[in-house]
Amino acid sequence: MAHLLIIGGSDAGISAALRAREVDPAMEVTVVVADRFPNYSICGIPFFISGEVPDWHDLAHRTASDIQAKGIRLLLEHTAQAIDPAAKQVTVLDRTGATRELPYDRLIVATGAEPARPQIAGLDLPGVYLLRPMESAFRLHRHVRKREPRSALVIGGGYIGLEMVDAFAHLGMSVTVVEYMPSLMPTVDPSLGRVIGAEVERHGVEVVTGVGIEQIERVGDLLAVRGTGGFQARANLVLVAVGVRPVSGLAAAAGAQRGIRGALRVNQQMETGVAGVYAAGDCIETWHRLLERYVYLPLGTTAHKQGRVAGENAAGGHSTFAGSLGTQVVRVFDLAVARTGLLETEAAQAGFDPLAIELETWDHKAYYPGAHRIHLRVTGDRWTGRLLGAQMVGHVSTQVAKRIDVFATALFHGMAVAALSDLDLSYTPPLSSPWDPVQEAAQMWISQRQGRHGT
Amino acid sequence: MAHLLIIGGSDAGISAALRAREVDPAMEVTVVVADRFPNYSICGIPFFISGEVPDWHDLAHRTASDIQAKGIRLLLEHTAQAIDPAAKQVTVLDRTGATRELPYDRLIVATGAEPARPQIAGLDLPGVYLLRPMESAFRLHRHVRKREPRSALVIGGGYIGLEMVDAFAHLGMSVTVVEYMPSLMPTVDPSLGRVIGAEVERHGVEVVTGVGIEQIERVGDLLAVRGTGGFQARANLVLVAVGVRPVSGLAAAAGAQRGIRGALRVNQQMETGVAGVYAAGDCIETWHRLLERYVYLPLGTTAHKQGRVAGENAAGGHSTFAGSLGTQVVRVFDLAVARTGLLETEAAQAGFDPLAIELETWDHKAYYPGAHRIHLRVTGDRWTGRLLGAQMVGHVSTQVAKRIDVFATALFHGMAVAALSDLDLSYTPPLSSPWDPVQEAAQMWISQRQGRHGT
Repeated sequence: MAHLLIIGGSDAGISAALRAREVDPAMEVTVVVADRFPNYSICGIPFFISGEVPDWHDLAHRTASDIQAKGIRLLLEHTAQAIDPAAKQVTVLDRTGATRELPYDRLIVATGAEPARPQIAGLDLPGVYLLRPMESAFRLHRHVRKREPRSALVIGGGYIGLEMVDAFAHLGMSVTVVEYMPSLMPTVDPSLGRVIGAEVERHGVEVVTGVGIEQIERVGDLLAVRGTGGFQARANLVLVAVGVRPVSGLAAAAGAQRGIRGALRVNQQMETGVAGVYAAGDCIETWHRLLERYVYLPLGTTAHKQGRVAGENAAGGHSTFAGSLGTQVVRVFDLAVARTGLLETEAAQAGFDPLAIELETWDHKAYYPGAHRIHLRVTGDRWTGRLLGAQMVGHVSTQVAKRIDVFATALFHGMAVAALSDLDLSYTPPLSSPWDPVQEAAQMWISQRQGRHGT
Repeated sequence: MAHLLIIGGSDAGISAALRAREVDPAMEVTVVVADRFPNYSICGIPFFISGEVPDWHDLAHRTASDIQAKGIRLLLEHTAQAIDPAAKQVTVLDRTGATRELPYDRLIVATGAEPARPQIAGLDLPGVYLLRPMESAFRLHRHVRKREPRSALVIGGGYIGLEMVDAFAHLGMSVTVVEYMPSLMPTVDPSLGRVIGAEVERHGVEVVTGVGIEQIERVGDLLAVRGTGGFQARANLVLVAVGVRPVSGLAAAAGAQRGIRGALRVNQQMETGVAGVYAAGDCIETWHRLLERYVYLPLGTTAHKQGRVAGENAAGGHSTFAGSLGTQVVRVFDLAVARTGLLETEAAQAGFDPLAIELETWDHKAYYPGAHRIHLRVTGDRWTGRLLGAQMVGHVSTQVAKRIDVFATALFHGMAVAALSDLDLSYTPPLSSPWDPVQEAAQMWISQRQGRHGT
């Protein structure tokens, strides 16, 4: 009986385990999990901190017993120390400090990512938090509940930073967010970033952009934070959310190649090139479907897909990862912010001839109560007419998340912007317009392109 | 200067006029409108009746002056009497009873549809209503506001019938809905129809299915309604919503061919075959992209698209209608009900080997507050694996309308059900799951298909 060993019990690892058992119910599958929290939704941590999810147990995508019921063996609180690809075994350390060798026929490395530690003095002071793994979330949760801090400063205005800003504000804290780039949420264009900034400020949060934090010091009960341009602020706690970096050392030591930001190199079958060793999730480079090259783009959705591909292939199947488009959505206060594909700047860097338009329109017929404005930004290639990307910001009720998915599905198929008008999308006055905002934006893009051609 | 004449000022006609002026700003465009209400959203009538849209003027997609500002001439309260394709002119009757001839270079027939009149005795009694055109909506609105009827009986449990049921219930009336088929909303499968039935009953509406209405009589202040199987009921007013039929006589008299249910035959360029004469909207047969044949499938979204194609081509452009997938959504009380593509029965009739699965799941991570259940039904071809259709019912907040659009975009491209798992769809816990319900359903379909193959 073939034995599949998986290192890592988060999205990619558990997806791989489940898929392998589906494809080959006879396969023996063991997952080595560093902590006691297999298959936890780390995307849910901000809502646990805010209290919207009171019980952290609910953050599990599946419980350990759900996973075990699928015939998967979980080794909790075991840390992989070394991979020996020649002997096909992995050395693991258990909670008692004992090590042992686990043999494998196939191995999947799903070691994930860890928070990036920026060059800031004072990161290890009490009251300064980074958000992964679950244990650090527990520490922050205890701090917030027991010591009732009045103020928080969040370093990083990307999607996790803003979710935490929202969580702290939800708790009634006075919040400041500091972003190094000129506008919040640098994963969308600055014009939409400003819409987000206005929403964040509307909820009483101080927004500071274009400032790099350099130092954190303790001053009595407070943390004193200093940054570029003379920036100074004080807060009871500081949260750092400036991205993540892949955990790839273990596989690299066993001969796997590393690429962008040290992430593991794999092919679209999730093979590392080391015989019998696959990798998936936040520890690897991701194939970008539109750029047709590898990027580092760690997302939970992608980790699930890559895990599924790795699990299927490790179990003898033939699956290929179709590629990422970088589709993402985040809720920030009353707004949903979504994007897919490329920004105008990214498209230009990739050699496209991007044209971007921006449209503000209603999510549904304005005559029907409850209509909200949506901001859309659509980028296409001026020369070929091909859709390259879309961004959207709108009230959380405006179906922005699934409207971006229409763009994502169109991008998947390499559609032309003009062809979006041909899509047979649903309409009823309380939920859309006869031309959905997606199509209205496409038609604006076409007019703009023709206008520019004409001049 | 070329002159484009358009008969009909609803969705198709006005879309055609606008597009023609965009493509050729020098083109002279005249629209003959039978009433005083060009470009009204007839889909909005139920919300005007319910009072959710207090002012009927708001139902205009655009005002007459918006349209005229685009350089389009409107002839309101003019009725086309005859088309002379040899002389290239149309005889119109104005409100004074005078007739005159309007010459054209290109003609677009967009005469729309009228409510079907079922074989029921008593349809012309006072208190019995059909819902188009705007004038009949005004009469019903006056009845409801001035005479404050306590009860309504709606004949037809399709999407317009149910929107009117919702409207009457919103007004506090006692409502009965009678559907001839075994479940409400026969455009979705009975299992989902039953979910809708339960929602309608939860709002105090009496649901009667499997009954054909035969007779309406006046008995004092009430209308007495009789149907098959001994059905009897009384109500202050009766609304009939059993579908529409194309208004195609005018074009047929000028030599245009008619097909299914008397709808005009056109090609995908919207040409009728009569030189210089195009047709679009609810008066024509519609190309079905999946069935690859013509059907009668009148929808506002389709009328807009066909009008756009006709307008572009009449102005010298080269546009092709990409076909309909029958995508639609309707809000019924707190539910959104959506479909695209084929039902299992329709797929079997068309020669496919359909396999349908049904899934009930959460619209977003259940740990985040406000999660609701969604019912999905996905149909694919067992032999080729191709996606054939999808249906969804869920709370109006569950993005069902735009989730069906992901299926619609996939169908547009002839995707396999299995490939839906490859789509890079957006995720954040308050709005979805790492595998969107669309993908969860696809994965269930794949398992089911493999299971059946295995037996």
